[in-house]
Amino acid sequence: MWLLTEEHLEPISIGAGILGTGGGGNPYIGRLRARQLIRKHGPIKVLDVDELPSDSRVICVGGIGAPTVGIEKVRDLQSFHALRAIEEYTGEKATALISNEIGGSNSLEPLIAASMSGLPVVDADGMGRAFPEFQMKTFFVHGASYYPLAVSDEKGNTVVIPEVISPKWAERLARASTIQMGCVACYAVTPMSAIQVKETAVLKTLSLVYQIGQAVLLARDKQENPVEAILNAHPGQVLFRGKITDVARRTSEGWARGSVIIEGMDSFIGSEMKIDFQNENLVAHLNGDPVCMVPDLICIVETDRGEPITTELLRYGFRVTVLGFLSPYLWTGEKGLAVVGPRAFGYDLDYFPLGKE
Amino acid sequence: MWLLTEEHLEPISIGAGILGTGGGGNPYIGRLRARQLIRKHGPIKVLDVDELPSDSRVICVGGIGAPTVGIEKVRDLQSFHALRAIEEYTGEKATALISNEIGGSNSLEPLIAASMSGLPVVDADGMGRAFPEFQMKTFFVHGASYYPLAVSDEKGNTVVIPEVISPKWAERLARASTIQMGCVACYAVTPMSAIQVKETAVLKTLSLVYQIGQAVLLARDKQENPVEAILNAHPGQVLFRGKITDVARRTSEGWARGSVIIEGMDSFIGSEMKIDFQNENLVAHLNGDPVCMVPDLICIVETDRGEPITTELLRYGFRVTVLGFLSPYLWTGEKGLAVVGPRAFGYDLDYFPLGKE
Repeated sequence: MWLLTEEHLEPISIGAGILGTGGGGNPYIGRLRARQLIRKHGPIKVLDVDELPSDSRVICVGGIGAPTVGIEKVRDLQSFHALRAIEEYTGEKATALISNEIGGSNSLEPLIAASMSGLPVVDADGMGRAFPEFQMKTFFVHGASYYPLAVSDEKGNTVVIPEVISPKWAERLARASTIQMGCVACYAVTPMSAIQVKETAVLKTLSLVYQIGQAVLLARDKQENPVEAILNAHPGQVLFRGKITDVARRTSEGWARGSVIIEGMDSFIGSEMKIDFQNENLVAHLNGDPVCMVPDLICIVETDRGEPITTELLRYGFRVTVLGFLSPYLWTGEKGLAVVGPRAFGYDLDYFPLGKE
Repeated sequence: MWLLTEEHLEPISIGAGILGTGGGGNPYIGRLRARQLIRKHGPIKVLDVDELPSDSRVICVGGIGAPTVGIEKVRDLQSFHALRAIEEYTGEKATALISNEIGGSNSLEPLIAASMSGLPVVDADGMGRAFPEFQMKTFFVHGASYYPLAVSDEKGNTVVIPEVISPKWAERLARASTIQMGCVACYAVTPMSAIQVKETAVLKTLSLVYQIGQAVLLARDKQENPVEAILNAHPGQVLFRGKITDVARRTSEGWARGSVIIEGMDSFIGSEMKIDFQNENLVAHLNGDPVCMVPDLICIVETDRGEPITTELLRYGFRVTVLGFLSPYLWTGEKGLAVVGPRAFGYDLDYFPLGKE
């Protein structure tokens, strides 16, 4: 167990921005919201999965919507309202909360509900990164239930989906409500047991994003290379370095979709990288050939400062480094790839792990 | 109390088609579905509102979606599933059911759930006609609660809206789910008490559509004028008679929208009527001037047979008579007109009652 205080928020938001692979919601806004509540209600307990009592009821909470909208229409207490709605519907009080995805502001979303309810959060999440759709969670791929779930907006509207035939259908219905709610909402899912969390979650990811963020901040302080610091904290590889020369972006069906083109610099001069995204970065092409793809992580950071850039903030002129990390193993089996492999996003590509082409 | 048997279904479907003002779902399909269940489970009890015990819990059930889709993707037991979902959510068993709208197949939708559950239906409804949107019910305008409500599809998906800030928001969220469910679904709303039904429902409408339908069938048998028979059973006026010469129709945002043009015949020769619809007929223009508008009823029937024509079946060449009926009084006050008057549908028109221009 450790206590998450205001001081943890900046490193977490940086680390979560990096593992967010461009999505998961703007972590800076998530940080400001969490800070306000921690100042008011005090630090938040973070439990290791081994510290969960066997009769635990762990509720997953998260944000849903388009990040392009989320940076203007800031979330409030929706995750807390969704938590209460699912507790009311199931008749079971949560004993702990868990993040839907550790990437982006969703790493911090459970802290909002935790601070409001006085509950601890688990050091784990349902993706080990960020993904654009509800069904894309290790929880569901490995057998935890995806319903009932509740979706709440800032106006006082709530929708409960008590029964649904597949995780993908839960996504369809939750997304349709989210769009009506103004493309920004939060959800909560039926409780998991301690053993379910242990078997289906990506573990220790809140600590991990904290460590990555700390490494970046330390490197900046010491005027060291922040990109190296990231790779020291979390092994991966540099896919590309260059300048953003073009961004195509549209907000459609509740997502931020598009692609970014980066012109090579330094050792990458003369090359070009194109990265396709749907909230998150999905496939990176080097001179036309795919080199890294979902579920592996494609992370764009500012070269000088190691600051992650979310897809809604990509723009011409940024000097960036593209990092690649291997996916958590819970995704790379057949069941996982069926949900988050390149074909799940419409790419006619067979997944190969980063560096193994 | 009376028993609704297979023999009542044909006249009810004709009368409901007429009061459906073009919408409410295709009554012929509703009739076939109800017949199948009545053959299996026996007749259905119909209660007068005065026969409801004071501790009644009356649940409104109905279909939602685009009639253009509903004639191809026939509903099954969705209203029964929505009923069970709302009973489960509220923890209260229904003691009777009531129709959301007496027009079209929605007059028969509660019979499906009634037959499956063994519950009686109340001789009343929430519109006295048909309207395209969820919030357009006398129940809600006059104070009955519009949440929680449940929406179910044929696949096994259900959405519950436990709390929502306005009836219009309930419509937005229910419609968004309906579209995802394939534009055809059924819903059930939180129980009403006997006194609430008495004060907020349009009464005796199931008997009324039966009587109208009986009059049409009798006139056909006796080779009398079926249009006159309709007006004898339910006072109204002939707005127009002619031949359909044009139909513009599109299915958008979960509705069937468009307009129909009728060229005058007999005493109307040389004139033209244009009727705008959104699932239901909304405004009738005679030579460019509005002569009948919501909430008054605009009903298109085949001139020869008195058979109602729903908006999704309008087509070139039909010889039709357009009938107008005054709206139930529950709609024509300020609160009612705010929800179903011409301005609620985007028309820059002040409501005037039929014949009172």
